[in-house]
Amino acid sequence: MENNRTEISTLGEFGLIDHLTKNFEIQNVSTVLSVGDDAAVIDHFGKQTVITTDLLIEGIHFDLMYTPLKHLGYKSVVVNVSDIYAMNATPTQITISIAFSNRFSVEALDEFYEGVFAACEKYGVDLVGGDTSSSQKGFIISVTAIGEVATDKFVKRSTAQKGDLICVSGDLGGAFLGLTLMEREKKIYLENPKVQPDLENEDYIVGRLLKPEARKDIIEFFEKNNIAPTSMMDISDGLSSEVLHLCKQSNLGCKIYEEKLPIHDLARKAAFKFGLDPTVCALNGGEDYELIFTLKQEDHDKIVLNEEISVVGYMTDAEEGYKFLSKGGNSFDITAQGWNAFNK
Amino acid sequence: MENNRTEISTLGEFGLIDHLTKNFEIQNVSTVLSVGDDAAVIDHFGKQTVITTDLLIEGIHFDLMYTPLKHLGYKSVVVNVSDIYAMNATPTQITISIAFSNRFSVEALDEFYEGVFAACEKYGVDLVGGDTSSSQKGFIISVTAIGEVATDKFVKRSTAQKGDLICVSGDLGGAFLGLTLMEREKKIYLENPKVQPDLENEDYIVGRLLKPEARKDIIEFFEKNNIAPTSMMDISDGLSSEVLHLCKQSNLGCKIYEEKLPIHDLARKAAFKFGLDPTVCALNGGEDYELIFTLKQEDHDKIVLNEEISVVGYMTDAEEGYKFLSKGGNSFDITAQGWNAFNK
Repeated sequence: MENNRTEISTLGEFGLIDHLTKNFEIQNVSTVLSVGDDAAVIDHFGKQTVITTDLLIEGIHFDLMYTPLKHLGYKSVVVNVSDIYAMNATPTQITISIAFSNRFSVEALDEFYEGVFAACEKYGVDLVGGDTSSSQKGFIISVTAIGEVATDKFVKRSTAQKGDLICVSGDLGGAFLGLTLMEREKKIYLENPKVQPDLENEDYIVGRLLKPEARKDIIEFFEKNNIAPTSMMDISDGLSSEVLHLCKQSNLGCKIYEEKLPIHDLARKAAFKFGLDPTVCALNGGEDYELIFTLKQEDHDKIVLNEEISVVGYMTDAEEGYKFLSKGGNSFDITAQGWNAFNK
Repeated sequence: MENNRTEISTLGEFGLIDHLTKNFEIQNVSTVLSVGDDAAVIDHFGKQTVITTDLLIEGIHFDLMYTPLKHLGYKSVVVNVSDIYAMNATPTQITISIAFSNRFSVEALDEFYEGVFAACEKYGVDLVGGDTSSSQKGFIISVTAIGEVATDKFVKRSTAQKGDLICVSGDLGGAFLGLTLMEREKKIYLENPKVQPDLENEDYIVGRLLKPEARKDIIEFFEKNNIAPTSMMDISDGLSSEVLHLCKQSNLGCKIYEEKLPIHDLARKAAFKFGLDPTVCALNGGEDYELIFTLKQEDHDKIVLNEEISVVGYMTDAEEGYKFLSKGGNSFDITAQGWNAFNK
């Protein structure tokens, strides 16, 4: 069609968004924050509105062979409210549009919406709109989440300062190990449909993959304890990838310590069983939907008693680079190994 | 998968949305209006936010064989801002997510975004977020539009009153005739690729299909002339289908007059050329993105000089049914013949 053809893989996902939106200028004074963070911020005279959107496609973002539709509905909401929390905001409304081929029945869609409603109830959000249509192939889900935040209380990715502590909520790598397990079982099943899946003792990692939760509790903890993170985002593509976003958008470097990475015992056991390094899973595995945020050092006392928050490192000058210090004392450069849809 | 399987076609698109969302209860006081109108309304202390979303899928909603990507980008924005205008609100921001297979190059996506930006500029909206990912097949577009409206100035579908005038903006049927032409030319081309498309003198209907505009001017006219429509929506599925929405949601009937239907001369000519009845095209053809609204009779003087507004009938008691009066004086029942994705 064109004489010049640039393959999208040459830009990568974030390069592509930058490329496509770079010449776009803001026209409305109500647009406080635009493309480039977990969510956009819109001013509404006294409160600010936060908005984020995600498109989830069967075969790319989820596999219905091992994802129950109810869980998929739940997760579709969770991944979006997670982006709202990542702005230090409270989710209030969502819209959800779906498209599906004729292999889906009303009962199947009911299951999906059961999960949607369960998540809406859990996170206190209202489903306020959407759209259903047919697709030529597969199941397609588009969710937009809206939240609110007191004026200028939202937290961006670009505002970390040198010396700030890098913190993460919960534990990392579990969802990736759950995915590894499900993909392995799927392969075995496809080769021999008579073999029953072996998911014994793997509830934890399977749950991390199929029924993630967004960290509402952490945002409430910030509010209650008067904590203002200096930057924040959610961990959907893996810690390595996300910490690089915070560094690059804040023009800083970082140091992350292997010994500080929060990894659940059951995730560690699963990693060994699959012959994987738990540290690599924690660094590069996606879909945990935990929060990564930076804090002023003097705020350390405010979080030290919260067992759901781990300090994993600190921000440095940009010249010091992006460093990972292993338990053995070696220093490695952090690179984004996160999920990249265009290299798959 | 299930023992009970209900085919989605038994519910239809609107029945399906009702079915899926019927048990859902509002949790946030800020949720003023939820599922069931062109857009949802969210309260923000002094202004209200209006939000709407659409999912557009290649092969279902558009055909890239005759839709230039730039036009597609433009139209993707227009169909969403049209829903915002249909609430009597002003669009301010959009998010846009796309997914595409590897047959698309960066240059192709650039073309698409050129159209997006042109529409954003024309309608004064900011692109504030989105997402790009790969798809297994085809091009998928999800747009969410946000608008604002002074408190309680938004116009719903359910508030028409008996005796109100039924008005439409612009003219009807053109986009459907454009689609008919393009589908005919596509068929000829597929049968014999050497034949050049015959689009002479068809600029009008082709433009109505490929580059529709949203009726910003009508909303501005309402504001300037202090006109408060009693109900309103945009015409995306055809006049018949939309007037039935207004009637059913307002618990009323209607009378529509064939002689009052606004049909462009070039659309009329095209209809005759294709052996179609222009009236049927105006009633049942979709995608014109005009507005249909109702007005108190005493407001008639305020609109009579606006050539872009036609009074096509009036609202009656529900018991009188949904009636269409032909030029010959016969009365017909109006039925929704609009686009139904699940019966295709």
